[in-house]
Amino acid sequence: MIDQTHDPKRQSWVDSANGHSDFPIQNLPLGVFSVGGEARRIGTAIGDYIVDLKALSGLLPAEVAPALSQPVLNDLFALPVADRRALRQRLSDLLSDARHRAEVEPHLYPAADCRMHLPARIGDYTDFYVGIHHAMAVGKLFRPDNPLLPNYKHVPIGYHGRASSIRESGVPVVRPNGQTKAPDADAPSFGPSQRLDYELELGVFIAGGNALGQPIDIKNAPDHIAGLCLLNDWSARDLQAWEYQPLGPFLAKNFHSTISPWVITAEALAPFRNAQPSRPDGDPEPLPYLNDADDQASGAVTIALEVQILTEAMRAQNLPPQTLSRSSTLAAMYWTIAQLITHHSVGGCNLMAGDLLGTGTLSGPEKAQAGSLLELSDGGKSPVTLANGETRRFLADGDEVILTARAEAEGFVSIGFGQCRAHILPAI
Amino acid sequence: MIDQTHDPKRQSWVDSANGHSDFPIQNLPLGVFSVGGEARRIGTAIGDYIVDLKALSGLLPAEVAPALSQPVLNDLFALPVADRRALRQRLSDLLSDARHRAEVEPHLYPAADCRMHLPARIGDYTDFYVGIHHAMAVGKLFRPDNPLLPNYKHVPIGYHGRASSIRESGVPVVRPNGQTKAPDADAPSFGPSQRLDYELELGVFIAGGNALGQPIDIKNAPDHIAGLCLLNDWSARDLQAWEYQPLGPFLAKNFHSTISPWVITAEALAPFRNAQPSRPDGDPEPLPYLNDADDQASGAVTIALEVQILTEAMRAQNLPPQTLSRSSTLAAMYWTIAQLITHHSVGGCNLMAGDLLGTGTLSGPEKAQAGSLLELSDGGKSPVTLANGETRRFLADGDEVILTARAEAEGFVSIGFGQCRAHILPAI
Repeated sequence: MIDQTHDPKRQSWVDSANGHSDFPIQNLPLGVFSVGGEARRIGTAIGDYIVDLKALSGLLPAEVAPALSQPVLNDLFALPVADRRALRQRLSDLLSDARHRAEVEPHLYPAADCRMHLPARIGDYTDFYVGIHHAMAVGKLFRPDNPLLPNYKHVPIGYHGRASSIRESGVPVVRPNGQTKAPDADAPSFGPSQRLDYELELGVFIAGGNALGQPIDIKNAPDHIAGLCLLNDWSARDLQAWEYQPLGPFLAKNFHSTISPWVITAEALAPFRNAQPSRPDGDPEPLPYLNDADDQASGAVTIALEVQILTEAMRAQNLPPQTLSRSSTLAAMYWTIAQLITHHSVGGCNLMAGDLLGTGTLSGPEKAQAGSLLELSDGGKSPVTLANGETRRFLADGDEVILTARAEAEGFVSIGFGQCRAHILPAI
Repeated sequence: MIDQTHDPKRQSWVDSANGHSDFPIQNLPLGVFSVGGEARRIGTAIGDYIVDLKALSGLLPAEVAPALSQPVLNDLFALPVADRRALRQRLSDLLSDARHRAEVEPHLYPAADCRMHLPARIGDYTDFYVGIHHAMAVGKLFRPDNPLLPNYKHVPIGYHGRASSIRESGVPVVRPNGQTKAPDADAPSFGPSQRLDYELELGVFIAGGNALGQPIDIKNAPDHIAGLCLLNDWSARDLQAWEYQPLGPFLAKNFHSTISPWVITAEALAPFRNAQPSRPDGDPEPLPYLNDADDQASGAVTIALEVQILTEAMRAQNLPPQTLSRSSTLAAMYWTIAQLITHHSVGGCNLMAGDLLGTGTLSGPEKAQAGSLLELSDGGKSPVTLANGETRRFLADGDEVILTARAEAEGFVSIGFGQCRAHILPAI
């Protein structure tokens, strides 16, 4: 539903929101922040500022006030869509109409003075595999003759990930130790991963969930999307190759995952929804439970994605981060978010408010759109050369990876996701 | 550490605890119960009664009192081992010494009048695969030439499961719908699973956890075990066969898992620990991080396990449950619980108090020790005939599966786990 909150002419009395900011008045993402040693509070980002929504709750719809007093977004996510829309509309009015400036401004904090936290208590985390070009590229490395398995175009492939080790942007990642086995070795050895990689993904926060045994019909699935964030699903490729048969990735993925702290709401993303790209000729139709005309018509969201790297040497040389790849959801996603939600619940599994789904690595069809070093370096065979002459097959200690995203559509103000960044510490 | 709480001569003034009860004074398991519509409270089982530990907390060590006022065991699990031991010792004294009867008895409830709940808020659930005979039997069905993959004897194989759909014993299981594909079909179809199965497992509740990036040394791993329960990891074999490549089981397992409600504490199980069975000649030594002389000497716990079935027809005929198989941890487990904990954390993954680990299906080497119908029926090829003439390849609607377990050792009073049971409702 596109309404006046998306009006491209609407501006904020917070000046920094009106240029090319990630957080114009059309965005109004939700997050959890703290100032100094104070308690965590729910806020929204506007330009270079964060608005304290707990302090502001007297001016906000009464239905949302109790949820806004929590230190995580779970209760807010669990509210009916209409309540979350009412919050957005009221915030848009308060931050655009200068008559409200005097009562709102005391509750603004410079974002630079704030610390961001995990937006929700993540009960369960599921990682999907919707990037068909990533699945194809990785499949080629493991199974040259049979890169895409027969189930891929029928089943939105996913697996359960580890919720406890998800951290907000900025928390350093310790290189994991683990078992690896060289193809020609008799036995595995133990030590730091030598093939540490990032994965460019989007995260999806679940709004209201479903009861155990009660699947979510695809017609209702969009109401279960609270919003999106960036997700870096750090992966130890050498650990994965040795451990993943027959039950899937485990230690190769569970040592750390990083998300951007702002939840870009489903409401803010409404103008960027468009028709799902039609499947290539000859591809099977989804089974009826995954098929819905509305989802076909507006289930795809167009988001431009970018991966940058900043190495220790680049920092020493005062170089800026260097772009490794640019991709987009439209080029990458074989399944829509609604299809992921419906598939996840179709056997009866209950989703809960605040659960996180990962899309899987969002690589486009071209090499320059690859969402991981595994793909950029052809499985480590062809190192990537950086502008300063350094090369990378996989990540080195001190490397910082920075993911960004931006939703753009003709006739609308584009909105950003902020950053998802973290650097690698040596193994202990 | 074996102390007076394990003294086989110790008896309780609660008479029903002194016969062949699952819950003699040597057990003292921890759980969460409620009476009528009242709030959930922490309790211990003694014979046919439950003791309200919140109400009793004035008589218990001061360090544990705040944790006992919670509606879940997480805070209690997170306390130092010494505090949990002190609680056990005090409870053992209070329930054995008749001088305390007058002050304790008002806080006893007949177990038959109570409802049991999930013992902890389970943050993350991980399922392992330590049953080597199960891995071999299942491997033979999928890969006749190569049943046990090369990593099995080096890596304690595990995968992340779904925490939100774990329920306590007694909650019915709805048969899941999902995609399946017959080997000769061109495309998958959608409908109720036709190969619904149980899996006989033990669950391990984590006590204190570890910080992200800080592995748990195997010498310290036993202190991170709060206790054990029974776990039925319901599995839809036909969904699993179609979906599990390349990322592992997903909808085939996440529709429901059932646990027994009483946590049999690590302290209660101390007398039943013994040397890990030596690996067959030619099997590799575990890598050093998984190797510890103490763990070798006392890391295995001997627990007898049993699976029973009660079908709708048997209920109509007033027949008792029929035993399908009997197994034991000692025959089944290739890895110790300490090895699972250390392996899980070795790359830096943080475990949290209240997390649940599943052992994997605990089948012994003989057919009569198989922990699933998949094994008992040779993958559905040879139906099992029940005493009343019914046959089962997989579970039918109305079937109830009952898991029980008992720890036994010469010179000690054996202790039981209570029941883990649930019946199958038709697909919706």
